[in-house]
Amino acid sequence: MNLIRAQLTQGRITTEPFPESKPIGGRALIDYWMTEHGSPTVHPLSEGNVLIIAPGLLAGTSAPSSGRLSVGGKSPLTGGIKEANVGGTAGHKLARLGIQALIVEGKAEEWQILKLNAGSVALETAGDIIGLDNYVACERLRERYGDKISIMIIGPAGERRLANSTVAVTDVEGRPCRHAARGGVGAIMGAKSLKAIVIDDTGTPSRKAVDSGAFTAAVKSAVEAIQSGPYGTLLHHSGTAGMIDIDNGRGSLPTHNHHQGAFEKFQNINANRLIELNKARGGSMGHGCMPGCAVQCSNIFHGADGRYLTASLEYETLVMLGANLGIDDMDAIARMDRKCDGLGIDTIETGCTLGVLNDIGLFNFGDGARAEALIDEIGKGSPMGRILGSGVEITAKTLGISRIPAVKGQGIPAHSARSMKGWGVTYATSPQGADHTTGSVVVDPLSPSGQVERSRTSQIINTAFDATGLCHLTFLFKNPETVMPMVNAFYGVDLSLADFMEMGKEMLRQERAFNIKAGIGPAQDRLPEWMRTEHLPPTHAVFDVPQEEIDDFFNF
Amino acid sequence: MNLIRAQLTQGRITTEPFPESKPIGGRALIDYWMTEHGSPTVHPLSEGNVLIIAPGLLAGTSAPSSGRLSVGGKSPLTGGIKEANVGGTAGHKLARLGIQALIVEGKAEEWQILKLNAGSVALETAGDIIGLDNYVACERLRERYGDKISIMIIGPAGERRLANSTVAVTDVEGRPCRHAARGGVGAIMGAKSLKAIVIDDTGTPSRKAVDSGAFTAAVKSAVEAIQSGPYGTLLHHSGTAGMIDIDNGRGSLPTHNHHQGAFEKFQNINANRLIELNKARGGSMGHGCMPGCAVQCSNIFHGADGRYLTASLEYETLVMLGANLGIDDMDAIARMDRKCDGLGIDTIETGCTLGVLNDIGLFNFGDGARAEALIDEIGKGSPMGRILGSGVEITAKTLGISRIPAVKGQGIPAHSARSMKGWGVTYATSPQGADHTTGSVVVDPLSPSGQVERSRTSQIINTAFDATGLCHLTFLFKNPETVMPMVNAFYGVDLSLADFMEMGKEMLRQERAFNIKAGIGPAQDRLPEWMRTEHLPPTHAVFDVPQEEIDDFFNF
Repeated sequence: MNLIRAQLTQGRITTEPFPESKPIGGRALIDYWMTEHGSPTVHPLSEGNVLIIAPGLLAGTSAPSSGRLSVGGKSPLTGGIKEANVGGTAGHKLARLGIQALIVEGKAEEWQILKLNAGSVALETAGDIIGLDNYVACERLRERYGDKISIMIIGPAGERRLANSTVAVTDVEGRPCRHAARGGVGAIMGAKSLKAIVIDDTGTPSRKAVDSGAFTAAVKSAVEAIQSGPYGTLLHHSGTAGMIDIDNGRGSLPTHNHHQGAFEKFQNINANRLIELNKARGGSMGHGCMPGCAVQCSNIFHGADGRYLTASLEYETLVMLGANLGIDDMDAIARMDRKCDGLGIDTIETGCTLGVLNDIGLFNFGDGARAEALIDEIGKGSPMGRILGSGVEITAKTLGISRIPAVKGQGIPAHSARSMKGWGVTYATSPQGADHTTGSVVVDPLSPSGQVERSRTSQIINTAFDATGLCHLTFLFKNPETVMPMVNAFYGVDLSLADFMEMGKEMLRQERAFNIKAGIGPAQDRLPEWMRTEHLPPTHAVFDVPQEEIDDFFNF
Repeated sequence: MNLIRAQLTQGRITTEPFPESKPIGGRALIDYWMTEHGSPTVHPLSEGNVLIIAPGLLAGTSAPSSGRLSVGGKSPLTGGIKEANVGGTAGHKLARLGIQALIVEGKAEEWQILKLNAGSVALETAGDIIGLDNYVACERLRERYGDKISIMIIGPAGERRLANSTVAVTDVEGRPCRHAARGGVGAIMGAKSLKAIVIDDTGTPSRKAVDSGAFTAAVKSAVEAIQSGPYGTLLHHSGTAGMIDIDNGRGSLPTHNHHQGAFEKFQNINANRLIELNKARGGSMGHGCMPGCAVQCSNIFHGADGRYLTASLEYETLVMLGANLGIDDMDAIARMDRKCDGLGIDTIETGCTLGVLNDIGLFNFGDGARAEALIDEIGKGSPMGRILGSGVEITAKTLGISRIPAVKGQGIPAHSARSMKGWGVTYATSPQGADHTTGSVVVDPLSPSGQVERSRTSQIINTAFDATGLCHLTFLFKNPETVMPMVNAFYGVDLSLADFMEMGKEMLRQERAFNIKAGIGPAQDRLPEWMRTEHLPPTHAVFDVPQEEIDDFFNF
């Protein structure tokens, strides 16, 4: 496997073998690279920052749900290390092209496209796709480069280097609806004047396992384990939206700018409603966010006219653009999601951002038209759009708002920290900032006891998973022991579960060390103070995990 | 001396004796209070933050130039501890009213005025002065409360809680042209819904020294020392603008967004030009920024029509709104200064903020009309005005600019760090962020050697001075030994020079400890990376004081 370095200031591309012999992929590769070569003190939008794109260890193989791709660097949103994780078709294709990591450095004078084929890597000027909505730009790129490509692209938000910018990745249908969404990785790409990466793996062989017999058996066993459990079936049927009833029921559904933990009108935005509308309009559930998924929990949403509107309405989007804004019109949420995908902005951060505007009278809960218009401002690049596109913390600072739902500069996602206290610990401590994928904790949610330990275990496992390219949701309630035989057979190594856990620990240590050098240390490992005093209905919980225990998180 | 606590949420005012027996004043009082009672983790705009106003130890006495007033709290701009230092008439009056410190807590429902008289302290609703320019509002307040008052007031910027908001203090003529300008202290006051503090010391006796004979002798000796030196005379004659030729000559005059260290047209904005215009138009040099000043280095500037335009055109303003923006029209600079004073924003931060707009084509160097129009946007409170009024770092983040002249979120003032390397160390290490009053260093400016030690000594002395209410400039090249006899005689104590230095050290330690708890530690003690690589003409210096030496700064 190779490392491709694209130095855009010089227009120089080099291909070299990856220097380490042990398997390092995905988030682990980002952590490795930032530790060895990244600068913690560089400005995230300066030439000195790097954009790292790394498929997981099992990408490009027949391992189920193994195409999650890691995109990272120093975050324009948090100022710390960042890995944003995304589905779509790019992960598998990159791996089949033998690319262990793509490192983008410097800054081009003109907007560029990086074209990756079997045996060739080239930069081309981006031309007339600048300024376009991601959907339109991807159409143009397919006209230019053919239908078989996978595209990684930034929208108008990333071009403007807004801190809430994503890197979109096309799905199986070629739509730019999967996003490496958090932490502003799109702004890093924009600051390099790299508009898109076009990946064509035509003619590449599939990756070969070192022990192909054992690998085939391990894959078979993993697929069986996934498909025999009830969780995969539920996810396939309801999508991540299935969590809405559960979170609403336990009072952990962020509603009305995190003022409530349940939404009166949750039934208008939940999985049942989504299934019902899709049935009536020709949309679909059970869609894969990436090829080779054993669960397929994604969906395609059609509008009232029966035509494609957006994909995919995930739990986080439905809650943060729905309940958190008091909006129960699923069509309005779908239009907002489509706008966010087109502009290349994160729906979680956007939901937090619009929510806080209620504090100063700039947004009324439930006003979907106003929410859409505010997202349109981001599209226009107006001064207000630039404020909103910079995320919730900058929006609050600019507009004089002090009640901010964010940790380390990143908006808090759709599981309430106060009524899911273990998850609150994850938000507080993750080197990635408040994040929904870094370490879920669902046990004993209203008790402050034991949550630091639970969060630690969960974060270690999730972090290790992010090295593999495997989907958290697919493997969520599986034992990591399902995973190790695949990795071992593919690479011809003999890693134990303890090794897997140790890899997660080492990654967290690297991320923590980078952040401390970047000026983000223990003092930033805390939830906003108001979460410790303001009671969240209906549970009336406050966040009361002792800070001293949280401060002990990294002692492992 | 008393401590007045105004709890605005409850509308409760208490007067209590200050609990400590040893003399603690000005910046030292802010450091003491924030250490003992402040919360490092509170949001600066939340009710939990405090606004502290503290006269120096010698305020309200006949000690020369002793009325500098400290205004502080947790900074909305830097997120750390903040003391902003200001002249005007308030310091002396507060001290004569027996007020050692005024602590404003909580947040009122409606805009308030705090009225301090001999024997009474009261809150009143602010009424029709909300939204007004500081000059107009002060006229109204004098109509309401009489001509003898001193006023501390926030402008429209502070009302909007913009991070670059000042607290203005009226001068001897009653004009709101002296500003506790840095760190956004006006936004703290705005977040408490406190529009103004009206101070009337009518009928209060002057403060009595414990040993009045010795105090009179010490004051006489200090005045003689000041007036016998050449520096006081120079300052009186040329004002702080006298530094322009010096800084320009040594290449340390920030010009064109810190791209140059000298300004071709410096003679159009220097002291000679100021004196010439004032002579022709009826303005004046040699004006006191506060009563009882032994130097009087301030000025009053008249426009081309011969009428008052602004006061005072100080070095920092002339450079940051002049050379740094490529503007050599002193009238344009004066109008900008007047606008900044009216809105209640800092001219240094504003100069840095407008300067970076050049990077993205929103401002051309030399375009005074555009600069004025951009300041007007801040006045309008438009989205662009809110961006610009939030200071240079937020402006850069919102607009996607990565070359930011700021440390700890605060814009770098008008002595170039690269060609005044000792000063650069001060910018990097001061707990106050990049600041022109925390520790000047002029020795061997282009050498990286010995600058940490020089900055440390300078910062310790300056910090201690900020406890006394004495003006740095007046006493700049005097030995602190001039000062101690005054403090000792007034308080009946026996502090040595070593005690004075130890006070400065202890204050810095307190500030540092607060900042570390607030999440601002060693990783933030650094200049922007581009200052280490980008050469500054005409000296072509880069900042090359080794970071390891800088990291050793607080080992004292």
